[in-house]
This record gives sequence, structure tokens and C-alpha cells, in this order.
Amino acid sequence: MHFCGPTGANAVEAAIKLCKTHTGRADVVAFQGAFHGSTHASMAVSGMLEPKENVAGLMPGVHFFPYSYCLRCPLSLSPDSCATNCARYLENSFDDRHGGIPRPAAIILELVQGEGGVVPATQEFARMVGRIAKKLDVPLIVDEIQTGYGRTGTWFAFERYDIEPDIVLASKALGGIGLPIAVMFYDRRLDTWGPGAHIGTYRGHQLAFAASVEALRVMRRDDILANVVAQGDYLLDRLVELRDRHSCVAQVRGVGLMLGLEIVELDTGRPDGDRAARIHRAALRRGLILELGGREDAVVRLLPPLNISRRTAEIAFAILAEAFDDVCGDPQRAPVCAGERA
Amino acid sequence: MHFCGPTGANAVEAAIKLCKTHTGRADVVAFQGAFHGSTHASMAVSGMLEPKENVAGLMPGVHFFPYSYCLRCPLSLSPDSCATNCARYLENSFDDRHGGIPRPAAIILELVQGEGGVVPATQEFARMVGRIAKKLDVPLIVDEIQTGYGRTGTWFAFERYDIEPDIVLASKALGGIGLPIAVMFYDRRLDTWGPGAHIGTYRGHQLAFAASVEALRVMRRDDILANVVAQGDYLLDRLVELRDRHSCVAQVRGVGLMLGLEIVELDTGRPDGDRAARIHRAALRRGLILELGGREDAVVRLLPPLNISRRTAEIAFAILAEAFDDVCGDPQRAPVCAGERA
Repeated sequence: MHFCGPTGANAVEAAIKLCKTHTGRADVVAFQGAFHGSTHASMAVSGMLEPKENVAGLMPGVHFFPYSYCLRCPLSLSPDSCATNCARYLENSFDDRHGGIPRPAAIILELVQGEGGVVPATQEFARMVGRIAKKLDVPLIVDEIQTGYGRTGTWFAFERYDIEPDIVLASKALGGIGLPIAVMFYDRRLDTWGPGAHIGTYRGHQLAFAASVEALRVMRRDDILANVVAQGDYLLDRLVELRDRHSCVAQVRGVGLMLGLEIVELDTGRPDGDRAARIHRAALRRGLILELGGREDAVVRLLPPLNISRRTAEIAFAILAEAFDDVCGDPQRAPVCAGERA
Repeated sequence: MHFCGPTGANAVEAAIKLCKTHTGRADVVAFQGAFHGSTHASMAVSGMLEPKENVAGLMPGVHFFPYSYCLRCPLSLSPDSCATNCARYLENSFDDRHGGIPRPAAIILELVQGEGGVVPATQEFARMVGRIAKKLDVPLIVDEIQTGYGRTGTWFAFERYDIEPDIVLASKALGGIGLPIAVMFYDRRLDTWGPGAHIGTYRGHQLAFAASVEALRVMRRDDILANVVAQGDYLLDRLVELRDRHSCVAQVRGVGLMLGLEIVELDTGRPDGDRAARIHRAALRRGLILELGGREDAVVRLLPPLNISRRTAEIAFAILAEAFDDVCGDPQRAPVCAGERA
């Protein structure tokens, strides 16, 4: 394990550097919809174009591949016609000696894209990416900065997938969600960099280390993982009911306490960021903080504390349901989302 | 002011991004000997080659220019023949329409290079760089991550120079040297980025903010700046005595409590990292932590706490003097540095 300093982005920077040093290569494979941070390298491997368009000269050599965002398949396939062709395209690209992309130093992957709109990788997609990385002998970096340390109901999201990451990045929930810490776990064979290869003033931040040890103790003592599963399941069931009541919800997605509802225009099915923003505001007026993310910021995201009680989850959902009724109309009184049609 | 998150390198990343967004340009001018951090952009603008040689594909578009490191003038001039030609070369390069280097998004400068070996910019060099930046309408980023908040005896090192930075970066001493914080001050006209342009989990780290406010209060209450000047002057005088006793010390440099002795081979005058390492170890055995830096790690660096007492400074210097006697021989008993000649 390596303490990467106090930011997740710094862990991403460290991981990419380590893979470049280990392999001697320069290119990096990333996935559309990814978010890895705001520094020159972590931004370069992130999908969101808006911030990137304003900053010339990010880290070069990044190649983007499609992610298993099946609601809006980047290959325009449907579940019927799909054979995880997104991952197949990745494999074919590197099997093709005219494919144009040199063997990379690393593949960097989120197993649940967070800022990208709460999009869990499909089992088959993740498994194939893992297998392709092994076949190419390219280190696989799994960015668990948002998913790690319990957010998805297991210590790490990768435990739910049949893959073996070479590097795992974590931050947020470690440190008790408060003190800045980011860590990188990596396979011993990658440990090829020298002393001082990734330095910084606050790398060994004792207070954050102490808080992390205590946070982990409390998580075990209170069986927080079980709570994440229980409250996550409860909320997911409620969100599915909400989807069934409001046709502006195209999909409910998520794992554990990382949940999202994708809001769409009723007539076109396109992401409806405007409506999501109104739901966001309506919930905030009633005391519930939601996040927005994904394409057009049209995914309403729930990221409650890992130790949320059932009672608080119930109150939160009640507010959310009211916010939907506010913005989309009460389906008991009117056609679904009719309030918006008027 | 912008809170850049908890690392200095993140402030460097933020500053470069802001300048790129503001100017729409991609290139950055940096100086030989600089150290700005370990991320892909901050490493790209740093001079040290060793870590860079192991990491392909750093931020592109960095152009290095000579710094006023007069002991080893990069232009092979001497004080007699010098007319701050290092800065003139910078100016000439951008005046030359065949100079090859596009007008940059930013010039990034340390006023006292720390990791580069405690090298203060000469007054004239800094003044000229400031003037050239203004003339070219290129934002000047002054990296005060090591020098800021009192280290050099003023709040910021730039106060000693006749320049007007567009951006000032600070970290370390703010936060009471303990809690991770980094900030960027910038001219209002540069404030052209949108919300979310530089985000991160720990950007608004309340505990570090509170610690910083308290650290600044204590610095004012105890007149820490006056202490830095007093103990810095005391130590500088002692180090000059040490230089006069040991001819392996080519130069004593520094400002305030940021001091260094450059150790050289007696016959060649080349940086003697091996001897510096022995001095480092001899001091450590006696209980004094020194740092090494600069070319070949041949600069013995002193970075004591800003609130160091005279008594502690005396003890520290006594240990340092003994370490020199150990490694270089006691000049009272034998010719200078004769211990090494045997």
C-alpha cells in the first residue's frame, strides 16, 4: 500500500505514474463516462468534456473506449443484440496491428461510474476488461475512490466482480469521510519506482491515518457494511416504486448506498437535466440534499452516509417522493408527469 | 482566493489550468532547478530529471529557461560578465518570431528555489521576469508553497522583490504546518473559469481552514515573522563562519529560515553529494535533521520551525558544526577538509 497524499486525484496521478514507470509505456486506456479527478492526468482520463475543453495540453496519450452504459449503448446495440461488444471492441483494437493504439501503460476503470451517472459496469463487461488487461499484460487500475470502503455494501466494489485488479485506489470513506487521505494498493510486482518518485508535503498525514484506523474500527464494530446493504436495498425498492409511478424516470441504478435515477424527456427519451434540476431544488427546499450527475446532469444521485438509519432513509425517501410529485405531478391525481405537459 | 485542496501540487495544477482557460493557450514556461510537485503537470514544470525520466507522457508544452543560479551560471557567465543574461534570453526568445516557442499560458517561478538547492532569485532576474510577463501579457505564477506564510521572514517572498505576481500559490506553513491545505491567490481578471472547473472531495476541508486561521493568529500574536528574521540572521552568520572554516562549502545561501550550504569537491568544485550525505548522517546521529537538495543532492538544507528559539538554533548550529568537523576534519587541528584528503 502506498499513501498517495490527501486527494483522490493524487492517487490517480500516482497510479498512472507507477504503471508508466513499470511498463516503460506512455499511453493510457480510459472509459467514456469516467471521472477520475481534476489534475492534468486525472482530468485527461475523465470523460466529461466541458472542463476539458477549457484546458489545453492535458496529459497526452489517452484513448477512450465505450463503457457498459446499456441504457444508452455507445454502440447503439440493445440487450437483445448485445454480446458485450463494448469490451469486444477494446480487445479487437489491441489485437489489430493496424488498430492505431500502442499497448498502453494502464487501463483505468471505475466499476460503478459515479459522476458519470451511477452506472455500474455489467458483470460481463468488467470480467472481459479484466481478462483483456491480463492478456495484454497491462496493469488494470480500478478507481474505487467513490466506491471503496463500503459505499457499495462490500469493502470494495471489485469484490462483486470476477476480476483481479493490479491497482486499487481508495479515498473518501476511508478517513471517516472527513480527513483527507487517499491510498493506492498495488501488486508487489509493480513496485518498481524509487524512493521519492511520488512525494508531497502531506503524504504522511498522521491525523488522517489515525482517523482512518478509527473509522475502520467503527465500521467493523457497527457492521456498517450490513447497514449499507440493508438501507441500500430498502432505498432501491422505494426508488423502483418511484420509477413505476413517474415515467420521467428511465432507469433506477446503483449498488449499496450509491443510487441514481435517470430522468428523461417523456417524448424523446433524452436526458432531461432541466427536470432533474427542478427535482434537486424541490428536494433541497424540503431539506434533502441530492446530487446530480451523468449526461446533461440528468441523473438524480443519492449518496447518503454509510451509517444512515432506516428512519432517516424513510424520511429522505418521503421527501424525494414529494419532490417528484411537485415537479412531475402526483400520479394519483393526474397522468404521469402531466404537470410538465401542461 | 481559491482553495485548491489539500496539496501544493494541486495548487500548481489549478493555477496552470486557470491560466490555460484564461488565455486559451497551451504552453508553459518554467525554470531550470524548479520543483513544483509530483503530479503530471507539476512534475512537467519541475527541473529534476530523475523522476521525470521514468514517467512518459507528462503534460506537454513546457519550455525551460535558465534561472539565476549564479554559482553555476547556466550561461557560463561570471558576476563580472553578467547582465542578467538568463532573463534576457527569456525576453529575446519571445521577441523572436523564429524563436520556436509560442506565447505561453503562464510563466511559473519560485523566488527561492527550495528543492533546487536553496537558490534565491536575484533581484534583477525576478524584476526582469516580472516585466517580461507583463509585456507579453502572460500571467506570472509565483509558487510560494515553500516560501509562503513566513518562511523567508516576510509573509511572502515576493514582498522582497519588485514584482507583481498574477497568481500566488501557498501551502505548507499555512495550516500550522500540519493540516493539509493549499491556496491560490489570483488577480480578479483571471477569474474566468466556471463552477466545478477544479473540484475534489477535500477542497473545502473545514478542519484545515480552522487550523489555518488559528496558525495565522498565533503567528501574529507571537510576531513569528520577527523571529524568522532574527533566528535566520543568526544562523546565516554562523553558516558563513562555517563556510570560512571549511573550504568544501562553496556557498551559503538563503533567506529567513530557508538556508543552505552547497558542498563541493575540493579539487574540481563540482557538487559533492557524497560528502553532503555524510554530513547529513553525522548530524542525524547527533539528533539534528537536515535536508539535502539541489544538484547531486549536494546542498545541505536547514528548514527549522518558524518559531524556533535562539537556544534551539544555537544547539542546532553546534551539532551542524560538529558534523562538519566529523566529516571534513577540525580546521583547528588540520588543514581544511584534510580529513577527506587522507
